[in-house]
Amino acid sequence: VAEFDFIRDFVRPFGVPPAPVGPGDDCAVVPSSRTPLCVTTDAVVEGVHFTLRHFSWEDVGHKALAVNLSDLAAMGAVPSWFVCALALPRGARSAQVRALARGMAPLAREAGIRLVGGNFTQAKELSVTLTAAGRVGARGALLRSGGRPGDQLYVSGTLGDARLGLACLGMRRAPRAQLRQRRPRPRLGLGLLSAHYASAGIDISDGLVGDLGHLCNASRVGARVSLAALPVSSELRKEAGRHAWRWAVAGGEDYELLLAVPRKAVRAFERASRRAGHSVANVGELTRRRAVVFVDARGRPTAVPHGFEHFTP
Amino acid sequence: VAEFDFIRDFVRPFGVPPAPVGPGDDCAVVPSSRTPLCVTTDAVVEGVHFTLRHFSWEDVGHKALAVNLSDLAAMGAVPSWFVCALALPRGARSAQVRALARGMAPLAREAGIRLVGGNFTQAKELSVTLTAAGRVGARGALLRSGGRPGDQLYVSGTLGDARLGLACLGMRRAPRAQLRQRRPRPRLGLGLLSAHYASAGIDISDGLVGDLGHLCNASRVGARVSLAALPVSSELRKEAGRHAWRWAVAGGEDYELLLAVPRKAVRAFERASRRAGHSVANVGELTRRRAVVFVDARGRPTAVPHGFEHFTP
Repeated sequence: VAEFDFIRDFVRPFGVPPAPVGPGDDCAVVPSSRTPLCVTTDAVVEGVHFTLRHFSWEDVGHKALAVNLSDLAAMGAVPSWFVCALALPRGARSAQVRALARGMAPLAREAGIRLVGGNFTQAKELSVTLTAAGRVGARGALLRSGGRPGDQLYVSGTLGDARLGLACLGMRRAPRAQLRQRRPRPRLGLGLLSAHYASAGIDISDGLVGDLGHLCNASRVGARVSLAALPVSSELRKEAGRHAWRWAVAGGEDYELLLAVPRKAVRAFERASRRAGHSVANVGELTRRRAVVFVDARGRPTAVPHGFEHFTP
Repeated sequence: VAEFDFIRDFVRPFGVPPAPVGPGDDCAVVPSSRTPLCVTTDAVVEGVHFTLRHFSWEDVGHKALAVNLSDLAAMGAVPSWFVCALALPRGARSAQVRALARGMAPLAREAGIRLVGGNFTQAKELSVTLTAAGRVGARGALLRSGGRPGDQLYVSGTLGDARLGLACLGMRRAPRAQLRQRRPRPRLGLGLLSAHYASAGIDISDGLVGDLGHLCNASRVGARVSLAALPVSSELRKEAGRHAWRWAVAGGEDYELLLAVPRKAVRAFERASRRAGHSVANVGELTRRRAVVFVDARGRPTAVPHGFEHFTP
């Protein structure tokens, strides 16, 4: 199969032709923009982020786009366009490329992001490297560095499910958690809303411990987090019992948002989130003292497992 | 080595901190732009585009950026920013990551393009996937689709050297051609200049036959090319003798520009190119009849080898 056929097959599920110039020229041409652009690049690699034993090609396509959209969500950006670089193992079939696109296109449509270009290459294993861009709203981008002591920490959805899903892939257990692992949902709506209230934000991709650390470092603050306040699904509670918090703290790949909200904006933020149907939990606050402390239900500092590092060469 | 150290090591050779927000947040934030943006993504993969036996990590860094800049050159765009997704084999060392950045940074500086973000992941083989963006000038982007019958075809520099260099890697022969293979030079200045004169353009990455075919298809025209007019280096002539044109026609990876210039703009284009120090050769013209014909010195149609396909699963 020639590269040209792969391009045609891949582009089709995305429907609308990407104007003004899309896949097919040396570059895509995207319209000018009055607002700054948020740009992120992220890859999913076979054997590192997924295996084809447990992920369908549709899952891979979905996840590749989802992890990039999650970065846009964390900045409070409105998704605009993306390019897709595919590395395919020798012998990849047209049906597989189409399946990958079929897994990606519905999420792209839902997020309002347009495929404008891409590249195919051969490789030993399947990988999908996307670069996605979004426009910053009137309030500017939500950075990691804006947090101040006293800001309240919020976490969206539930934590630890994707890690539980990873542990259960191929089993009959924890079907919802497995879906969280294979088909993460970027929190775009909450990210946009948060740009109006939050002082800082990050998406939880490496686990709460790690990503909270990044936010604290960038904001030059510390944090105090209540383990009992961490939002945990009934599935995780059932599977992990009283250890559920360990998964919630260090799991990784949840693609929930961690937000710092100034005290004076807390009520408005909670109300706006509730009205928009986003579940958020107040899990702690930022502190002047530059250490991240997790406390149990009785307020005692508790050692927590380290974040889940994607990258361990 | 943790991902964080790799990022720090990688970013250092690029010097200036990438404002306003660069590597380190969930997204880079790039300033708004009054003109449309040209965006391209291209990967170089170990075992497909290079081997570490013949390429240093510096070479890999240089080439990864060069092939993306060449796409911007072909659109007549002014390089603006890029993001870099690195896939590193297990056991990659910090010194190697630094070398890769050292090979990339001087070209980035020269081209005026800014590293704004990136991503690290593990993989079985080394690969570098860049996404580069450039601003379109006042005359708009140079597309593949603007060619008209009668437009004169120009090729920059010399053709076939990169293919010769590939054949000679590790030998003492053809050192300049080997350099063309390992360290291609994107024709950014010529691309910018050409946006004022040319009706269509493409960079020659897959070989003249293939890329001329792309331009003709997009422009819905054919072409007539004189084999005797193809610019060939003395090195290629020495190595390939009377077969030099075969390498020039089908070689690939030259990253020269192929341009279509309307007759009435030909003199001005040639003069401007000469003044700016760009060597360009008139190699034929676009035709109404939708076939690409190569003719020998006596005007006889000649069969040519097929383009060099990067991608042959």
